Amino acid sequence: MTAAELRIGVIGAGAMGSDHIKRITRRISGARVSAVVEPDETRAQTAVQNAPGAQAFGRIEDALEAGAVDAVLIATPGFLHEAVLLPALEAKLPILCEKPLTPDPESSWRVLEAEQASGARRIQVGFMRRFDPEYRQLRELVSAGTAGELLMVRAAHRNASVPEQYQQDMLITDSVVHELDVLPWLAGAELRSLEVKLPRRNSLTPERLQEPILVLMELSNGVLVDLEMNVSVQFGYQVTTEAVFESGVARIGENAGLQLWQAGRTGTGVDADFTTRFATAYDEQVQRWVDAARAGLAGTGSFVDGPDAWDGYRVAVACQQGVKALHAPGTRVEVELPERPAFYR
Amino acid sequence: MTAAELRIGVIGAGAMGSDHIKRITRRISGARVSAVVEPDETRAQTAVQNAPGAQAFGRIEDALEAGAVDAVLIATPGFLHEAVLLPALEAKLPILCEKPLTPDPESSWRVLEAEQASGARRIQVGFMRRFDPEYRQLRELVSAGTAGELLMVRAAHRNASVPEQYQQDMLITDSVVHELDVLPWLAGAELRSLEVKLPRRNSLTPERLQEPILVLMELSNGVLVDLEMNVSVQFGYQVTTEAVFESGVARIGENAGLQLWQAGRTGTGVDADFTTRFATAYDEQVQRWVDAARAGLAGTGSFVDGPDAWDGYRVAVACQQGVKALHAPGTRVEVELPERPAFYR
Amino acid sequence: MTAAELRIGVIGAGAMGSDHIKRITRRISGARVSAVVEPDETRAQTAVQNAPGAQAFGRIEDALEAGAVDAVLIATPGFLHEAVLLPALEAKLPILCEKPLTPDPESSWRVLEAEQASGARRIQVGFMRRFDPEYRQLRELVSAGTAGELLMVRAAHRNASVPEQYQQDMLITDSVVHELDVLPWLAGAELRSLEVKLPRRNSLTPERLQEPILVLMELSNGVLVDLEMNVSVQFGYQVTTEAVFESGVARIGENAGLQLWQAGRTGTGVDADFTTRFATAYDEQVQRWVDAARAGLAGTGSFVDGPDAWDGYRVAVACQQGVKALHAPGTRVEVELPERPAFYR
Amino acid sequence: MTAAELRIGVIGAGAMGSDHIKRITRRISGARVSAVVEPDETRAQTAVQNAPGAQAFGRIEDALEAGAVDAVLIATPGFLHEAVLLPALEAKLPILCEKPLTPDPESSWRVLEAEQASGARRIQVGFMRRFDPEYRQLRELVSAGTAGELLMVRAAHRNASVPEQYQQDMLITDSVVHELDVLPWLAGAELRSLEVKLPRRNSLTPERLQEPILVLMELSNGVLVDLEMNVSVQFGYQVTTEAVFESGVARIGENAGLQLWQAGRTGTGVDADFTTRFATAYDEQVQRWVDAARAGLAGTGSFVDGPDAWDGYRVAVACQQGVKALHAPGTRVEVELPERPAFYR
Ligand SMILES: [Mg+2]
Ligand SMILES: [Mg+2]
Ligand SMILES: [Mg+2]
Ligand SMILES: [Mg+2]
Repeated sequence: MTAAELRIGVIGAGAMGSDHIKRITRRISGARVSAVVEPDETRAQTAVQNAPGAQAFGRIEDALEAGAVDAVLIATPGFLHEAVLLPALEAKLPILCEKPLTPDPESSWRVLEAEQASGARRIQVGFMRRFDPEYRQLRELVSAGTAGELLMVRAAHRNASVPEQYQQDMLITDSVVHELDVLPWLAGAELRSLEVKLPRRNSLTPERLQEPILVLMELSNGVLVDLEMNVSVQFGYQVTTEAVFESGVARIGENAGLQLWQAGRTGTGVDADFTTRFATAYDEQVQRWVDAARAGLAGTGSFVDGPDAWDGYRVAVACQQGVKALHAPGTRVEVELPERPAFYR
Repeated sequence: MTAAELRIGVIGAGAMGSDHIKRITRRISGARVSAVVEPDETRAQTAVQNAPGAQAFGRIEDALEAGAVDAVLIATPGFLHEAVLLPALEAKLPILCEKPLTPDPESSWRVLEAEQASGARRIQVGFMRRFDPEYRQLRELVSAGTAGELLMVRAAHRNASVPEQYQQDMLITDSVVHELDVLPWLAGAELRSLEVKLPRRNSLTPERLQEPILVLMELSNGVLVDLEMNVSVQFGYQVTTEAVFESGVARIGENAGLQLWQAGRTGTGVDADFTTRFATAYDEQVQRWVDAARAGLAGTGSFVDGPDAWDGYRVAVACQQGVKALHAPGTRVEVELPERPAFYR
Repeated sequence: MTAAELRIGVIGAGAMGSDHIKRITRRISGARVSAVVEPDETRAQTAVQNAPGAQAFGRIEDALEAGAVDAVLIATPGFLHEAVLLPALEAKLPILCEKPLTPDPESSWRVLEAEQASGARRIQVGFMRRFDPEYRQLRELVSAGTAGELLMVRAAHRNASVPEQYQQDMLITDSVVHELDVLPWLAGAELRSLEVKLPRRNSLTPERLQEPILVLMELSNGVLVDLEMNVSVQFGYQVTTEAVFESGVARIGENAGLQLWQAGRTGTGVDADFTTRFATAYDEQVQRWVDAARAGLAGTGSFVDGPDAWDGYRVAVACQQGVKALHAPGTRVEVELPERPAFYR
Repeated sequence: MTAAELRIGVIGAGAMGSDHIKRITRRISGARVSAVVEPDETRAQTAVQNAPGAQAFGRIEDALEAGAVDAVLIATPGFLHEAVLLPALEAKLPILCEKPLTPDPESSWRVLEAEQASGARRIQVGFMRRFDPEYRQLRELVSAGTAGELLMVRAAHRNASVPEQYQQDMLITDSVVHELDVLPWLAGAELRSLEVKLPRRNSLTPERLQEPILVLMELSNGVLVDLEMNVSVQFGYQVTTEAVFESGVARIGENAGLQLWQAGRTGTGVDADFTTRFATAYDEQVQRWVDAARAGLAGTGSFVDGPDAWDGYRVAVACQQGVKALHAPGTRVEVELPERPAFYR
């Protein structure tokens, strides 16, 4: 890894692109957004303001020519992907391309040819579910084989609602597309066939849609998938996956880690120590402090965004009295603080 | 916020310090470890290897003199904090100090005086639970008052076991110390008294310890806390907090978000959309891709760490057939792929 | 209702029949087993011993002729049902017939004709799931319509294993048969079609079986059912039903009542008071006391099977001291008992 | 056990007494209510109407003299218990006495003396929690020792609200009284001391009450109990018990059986087969059929209260088609029914 930060050009500054810009700027180590490629100027300017040091470009070619980027993240609509992928491949840049690669097999095949011509695998596709901790746990269970072979997958993909531009085919191309990648990956097999069944239509779905649908998939190892695809379920967003093994059943997607039924019991894992239980808290603490420190040093904010030295003092007093209480079980020990200095109010 | 990365000096490269070095290098945006202050040379060298571009120093004064740091993160044992805090304050640097601030009220008071003399609040103390999403949710419930006033807090802090150097008083100074900060913060009140009760001793705890203990705390607003502190519970790590309100009860710490009992029902929230459900997956995806891209550009690795273009092609074929299946409900549509190019194997 | 106990003839004293005999004798009010009809004499004698006052008969006709029964409960294998149902109908007795009514539509139709000839509906069929509290709750949710119309049902019926006599067709006739009754009842609609899909076979299932299977059912109101039927899942017994509504999802079968996802939250109901929370405890307490009292009066046992008067005394002392403690908050009040009289040891 | 039904005299026909009358009449095998002793005539008449064959009496002595009862169930207010217990003991009857035995140690001691004089233990006290399946499971875990010794019990007893006659001392004598019996029973030890702590008062509790309270109890084996007693929690009724063992923690009272944290996992048991999963359904089915059959035979109702023969026929058709579908995987098989006979509508 180079010591220098990776300069990323984000292509497309719509909802998805803006989200990635924010992520790279505020969450991701070792990288910053150096360029935003977006034909809409208003969007481009807004995006650039969220990424200190980034330049706006109208076309990817200009950003490449300017030598402004080490890598590109593509977040345009899918039908524009090919037009961006090809010059980026020619420039031999690392690419993170939001799903789908392209909207049809023919254009995808052309991209594969261009990548092969470029001499190295440079394209990563944004099927982010593979990075979800629960999917990873479930995949490990499949590989480990401790519950026997995987036989069936019973899945549900539910959205509260969909935006105006969502059309019937997008049930497959925009929604089921995630399962088309992640379920074969999970099962360690190729997809062999697809079938759709239509249940009763949801009267709350937009008039142009006929859904929910049930999608049946057969995989090359015999695993059968039945997936409910539902985009108007109203209550919220939910993606659950129930894996039926020879000697157990596992479920993910209910915000409680992997739940396993095996050997007469059902349950989930417990944290081994604070490093997992409070992992998010530690990351969040340090990130907020870094942000405050940078802002403070730039003269535009405080140096602290969290418990301060007064809190530290207060707890030192409490600990002192707590130790006294520990040595005298059954005795109530009072805690008194001096007046808080004005400086800390 | 400055565009430049914050150069952090990490003081102490033991378990906690190493963890922070790794975090800053691999998780935190806008900052890098520029210096490691650690008298033990082996430790110092190991630490520096995990932080590209960092220098090792034996004493904080040398790091400050070298102008090598914009901010310091203190991760030495607590009894050494004061000796590091004072020069860092004198240098007017932002400081993140692991808990405790110092081990006793007198030294903490001296630190407060030095900070006041420095002219600004520069010290943040590492009570990281305040950054845990569940504690924050619970605190919002206290503030919002939608379940009435908070009346009691019933808490448990359980460790599987403790290391050899853990002594009886550390039940308070090392473990309960977290609750001494976070529970008053949660309740919006000051601690007023402490009392310890001794239940039956755990025969599995080290001979030098008498535990678990029950700690009773009264807060300035009348809230009563009963906290089980247990460091030999064997099964794993668990920190639960049950908040008893006037018209409901809320519990956190069971890996399922905030569970609320109110108005005849109990339950938890559901994700509104994919941005929360898959937040970790998105972050992880981009971080891994950035790491791979940097490594690939440096000639020491692949450009891809996740689904590649062949996966993108494969899914394009599946989508095409899926749309056919959608238009012909009840019909099984086959999915066939060309031979996978050697390039993608 | 008559004041007299219903005299039930149980037909068949195999596993199911014996279970019913035990139930009627020990759990059911207003009825007793007066006759057991079972050609196997050993079985018949064992059965009769569990039902004080019951007589054994080899054929139902003899029991009817003897005027020994007011009603019959049929628990023979299904292929023998018709031969028992017809004479019982002719005798105009109330009948509880274990499922199936008969093994095929033709014989079932003959039974319907005989019942019509008898002038009243006398046959109840043992589809007991309709009496399960969770199924009833779910059906009420369907009727109430508070989550919108029912669209899909996603079900799983899992057995740890099956006995030697279990054959492939019994996947339908012995197992799925329950869902064939209860799911249309739940959905308020008729079954219109059936389809079976074969996933990967469980290598742990007996060689003669090809399972699990996925059964797809269409109902007359458009509701689509996908049911996993699995008889070798090893871990235990589980019957789950997930009902997908227009604006919510409900699940039963996980020992936690009906779990509902609706309006951004998921959860279950909470008991309103002790009458539901401890309903089983109250019933069990009184039943055990009744059994002990009857046994005691008959000179064959104790009059008490639970907390006795000494327990009552002990708690009276504790209450007295507890009230003192309540009036002196923060004060430890001791509890002392006199020596326990030998009579109570 | 005698073959004859136990004739129970229920003393007191208030809320609790009426509930027991209903229970004995409709749920309990081998017993019926033969007498109701209640000075309030309206109450007495209502009670008798719910118990076919029962007689009303104004005083227990009259019921005893009339030879109308084999056993008594006492459900009067506690201060009247002694006056009922003494004549019942003199008559040497089995007694189930609602808690408390009597309201104070002196009167309880007199009852103990009378029982000893009667020559046998005849009194069972209505601490029904001992019969709750979850408490029993937890007690088995204590005895088995598989999670080590019990160290602490952390309990909560929460009521939505209390009736007008509920006074401050009843926090102990009417509510905590249950834990005073069941927790020592659970822990296998005697109660040694009590202490009460007062948290912030719930503003929603009646003006005459100061609650919730925290009750601390020490048991003879060193186990420490902290019990939250809360009678205005608004949301519903909840009794939870968390048992802290040397190598695990168990919790009951959340409608999911016993949840155990042990060895890195947390979870609950799974049903082994249908007999436990559908135990309630089987009991309920047979009880309803018995009630319908008795009513039908008495000419006041139908013989059936559940699925009827038409349901049986319908399922026979569905099974036939289901078997066809099983033999032709992937083929949709239609289900058609003849017109339903008018007799079955
Ligand atoms: Mg960083
Ligand atoms: Mg960054
Ligand atoms: Mg009865
Ligand atoms: Mg009975």
